[in-house]
Amino acid sequence: MEFTIDQIAQLLDGNVEGDGSTKINRLDKIQEGTAGSIGFLANLTYEKHLYQTQCSAILVSENFQPQKETTATLIRVKDPYIGFTKLLETYQKITKPELIGTENPSFKHESSTIGANFFRGAFSYIGRDCSIGDNVKIYPQVYIGDQVTIGDNCIFHPGVKLYSGTIVGNNCEIQAGSVIGSDGFGFAPQADGTYKNIPQLGNVILEDNVSIGANTTVDCATLGATRIGKGVKIDNLVQIAHNVILGENTVIASQAGISGSTTLGKNCVLAGKSGIVGHIQLADRTTVGANTGIMKTVKEPGKTFLGYIGMDIKSYLKSYSIFKKLPLLENKLRELEKKL
Amino acid sequence: MEFTIDQIAQLLDGNVEGDGSTKINRLDKIQEGTAGSIGFLANLTYEKHLYQTQCSAILVSENFQPQKETTATLIRVKDPYIGFTKLLETYQKITKPELIGTENPSFKHESSTIGANFFRGAFSYIGRDCSIGDNVKIYPQVYIGDQVTIGDNCIFHPGVKLYSGTIVGNNCEIQAGSVIGSDGFGFAPQADGTYKNIPQLGNVILEDNVSIGANTTVDCATLGATRIGKGVKIDNLVQIAHNVILGENTVIASQAGISGSTTLGKNCVLAGKSGIVGHIQLADRTTVGANTGIMKTVKEPGKTFLGYIGMDIKSYLKSYSIFKKLPLLENKLRELEKKL
Amino acid sequence: MEFTIDQIAQLLDGNVEGDGSTKINRLDKIQEGTAGSIGFLANLTYEKHLYQTQCSAILVSENFQPQKETTATLIRVKDPYIGFTKLLETYQKITKPELIGTENPSFKHESSTIGANFFRGAFSYIGRDCSIGDNVKIYPQVYIGDQVTIGDNCIFHPGVKLYSGTIVGNNCEIQAGSVIGSDGFGFAPQADGTYKNIPQLGNVILEDNVSIGANTTVDCATLGATRIGKGVKIDNLVQIAHNVILGENTVIASQAGISGSTTLGKNCVLAGKSGIVGHIQLADRTTVGANTGIMKTVKEPGKTFLGYIGMDIKSYLKSYSIFKKLPLLENKLRELEKKL
Repeated sequence: MEFTIDQIAQLLDGNVEGDGSTKINRLDKIQEGTAGSIGFLANLTYEKHLYQTQCSAILVSENFQPQKETTATLIRVKDPYIGFTKLLETYQKITKPELIGTENPSFKHESSTIGANFFRGAFSYIGRDCSIGDNVKIYPQVYIGDQVTIGDNCIFHPGVKLYSGTIVGNNCEIQAGSVIGSDGFGFAPQADGTYKNIPQLGNVILEDNVSIGANTTVDCATLGATRIGKGVKIDNLVQIAHNVILGENTVIASQAGISGSTTLGKNCVLAGKSGIVGHIQLADRTTVGANTGIMKTVKEPGKTFLGYIGMDIKSYLKSYSIFKKLPLLENKLRELEKKL
Repeated sequence: MEFTIDQIAQLLDGNVEGDGSTKINRLDKIQEGTAGSIGFLANLTYEKHLYQTQCSAILVSENFQPQKETTATLIRVKDPYIGFTKLLETYQKITKPELIGTENPSFKHESSTIGANFFRGAFSYIGRDCSIGDNVKIYPQVYIGDQVTIGDNCIFHPGVKLYSGTIVGNNCEIQAGSVIGSDGFGFAPQADGTYKNIPQLGNVILEDNVSIGANTTVDCATLGATRIGKGVKIDNLVQIAHNVILGENTVIASQAGISGSTTLGKNCVLAGKSGIVGHIQLADRTTVGANTGIMKTVKEPGKTFLGYIGMDIKSYLKSYSIFKKLPLLENKLRELEKKL
Repeated sequence: MEFTIDQIAQLLDGNVEGDGSTKINRLDKIQEGTAGSIGFLANLTYEKHLYQTQCSAILVSENFQPQKETTATLIRVKDPYIGFTKLLETYQKITKPELIGTENPSFKHESSTIGANFFRGAFSYIGRDCSIGDNVKIYPQVYIGDQVTIGDNCIFHPGVKLYSGTIVGNNCEIQAGSVIGSDGFGFAPQADGTYKNIPQLGNVILEDNVSIGANTTVDCATLGATRIGKGVKIDNLVQIAHNVILGENTVIASQAGISGSTTLGKNCVLAGKSGIVGHIQLADRTTVGANTGIMKTVKEPGKTFLGYIGMDIKSYLKSYSIFKKLPLLENKLRELEKKL
């Protein structure tokens, strides 16, 4: 692709400051670009790069006031980050070939149906009685079990596994290697110290606009459904146990884990490596810090937790700051004891 | 399937209280069921649901005394949870079609043998000189390397990978995407700061009745075997390093990890995200709390640990309760200093 | 294979003490070997096993002075551990059949090229316009997307997924189920509480001699490259987020995670379950303890950190030792208060 700066400004409804006829053929970070690149400046901690950038054009905010000279042509837009995201999307549409058709060998049981404009990669598998919508892209080595229902515009990257009975809404995307619908971890202890497997008969429901990262696992429910709400975004290597329910637009970062039968509200944020015990509820907009464990139901919405056993974040940081100087405290205490 | 309440009571050796002729066609949670559902009440914290349930029948304990009226027919059994598990198993047997035969294309080297009543899914792979028992179900995209030995009644869900030389006992089940026998993480530091790979020549042995979750990894031994004892249950995304030995009936929850050459006794329980360092031993019935790190050998059986560096659980909780109020302690100390 | 002890001593440039004509056909641990085994003694905490070993031969250090008698023939070498590693390598070369050729069915787009001496396993997939070097072993069910470049002597174990655009150097090895190049976790929050996917247009570059464990995930960059430096060793179930840069010879143990846009120097060591936040830098030779979180840039090379929020390791251990006796401290404080 190659566009002039003027053409890009028109696409983004922006104003050009400098030579608008320069050709652009690449998107780059402001600090890494070269001639022909367009970058952006949203966070002003990166402003110093503007005065050294080799990019030919930089998106800046409408009201931005440069402190020094820059060789780059500026395009002033309402929100440079959103503008740049729009360019990324446009670039992706133009450069990424659309996948269509069936690669062979691949496997689809005759009882299953798939809509228009599909892609089925080599060594992908579709079991019995599946119903799959339009514009669904099934990469190589994907497994779709029996009685799976999938909406429109979904993408399953290589090696994704959907167990039988999984239900997927519209516009969902799952990165490579993730497993949806594996058996929940349910074992009944027996008198002799052994454990007996408890059949896991439920399924997993992904509502619309769900994104799931790579090598993540979502277990099916024992009965009923493990439900991932509309617009939920889940990162890599996350564990979602059986019968978990995630509210709309909740975001879960890498290596976090949620134990069985726990329910999260809407717009919660779980940072990396955080863990939530089973059978509790988190209110809407709960934020859980990195590596933080939540052991009890949170009823009040909008709270933020941090700590090995999660505490209010301010309290935790205060306690931790004193933890750091415990040797000092101990010494003071000793001195006081001596004095008395 | 459809059975009368009387028929179900007979299966479970229970007594009916109410209309035994009602038809049941579904298993449900007590709080989610509708007409035609059967549920159960084992944990009395759920008792309130009994008086509002829409289920047609509920399994209760022989001695249970309802506090209010319920519209559901009761079936009194010795243990409602065990009874319900039996119903789940029966339901699964009736409803889940048995997988038999070979889907094509699939790959099996001519030198390998497989017993009666097998299933080999499309795109599954069996290497050279494997010996596989009866009633083994190999789902699509499973990889079984060379010289692998597998007992009877095993299930390998889609995409499971068994490296060459793996030995699997009877009645084992592995969920999708798990890797058994990957090279241990062994590298010899060289004088120039680089690392040299140490060949990993051992294997993994899974004894009878082992269950492994999804996307879990079990490394082969450098020499000898990484051994998963009889009846061990492992959840999703767990890491078992080279030369680890797990005693019988040990249970390991999601995202836990065990470092190289560590040995666990029988009937240990590792909660989610717990971690055990390498080259130590844990005695029988050791319990390790969530996100807890164990750094030293535990010789006394039956102890429970909690904490970033695992401590006796009671001591940890006591210390942590004071950690929470460290700012208060610090203030008190300051006041004392002023007074003196 | 079968060699005399004399032949092995010659290979390792060592001196025999005892009967050099005994035949050896197995490598074993000193405490597990039997007649025909060779073992080694490097770490003297294992010395007691020397006097009870059933091994026929043991590698010991040139200067080692046995305290008691042993039935094993000794081979004295400069470094018994390095010597044993050399034997492991030799054993592996002799016993492991070299994989060559193409198993069918497998998939390679006609536009892609692969060098001499390759192996392509059944159900493996190579997309368009890939360039693959010599001696590359692609196990069954591996996925290699479009425009992927791979150097010489690389091994991709079963089910590895390389997204389109990935670049792999020479002598790299990736264990089963790992995903390289999955989309970074980038979502722009919208005014209505939903999130919009940000296209991830970059790639992943693995430099020479990189080893990656099983079921690990390495995300592609939003723009530019996520870069894994020369000689980096990564264990199982590790998360490397978008735009991370890892310096040469850095080692990362299982279940560790690095958030987006963070840069690590050379020869860093990350222990199991450690976590590094996004957008920071760690200096060369930084060591991060197990389950430790690093929240800030580390400028000084060679430091070691430990703790929930990483502290200097000595300070952390001191504080933690006092944390353990906080109840005692609290009591002392109470007594002091009473006295005053």
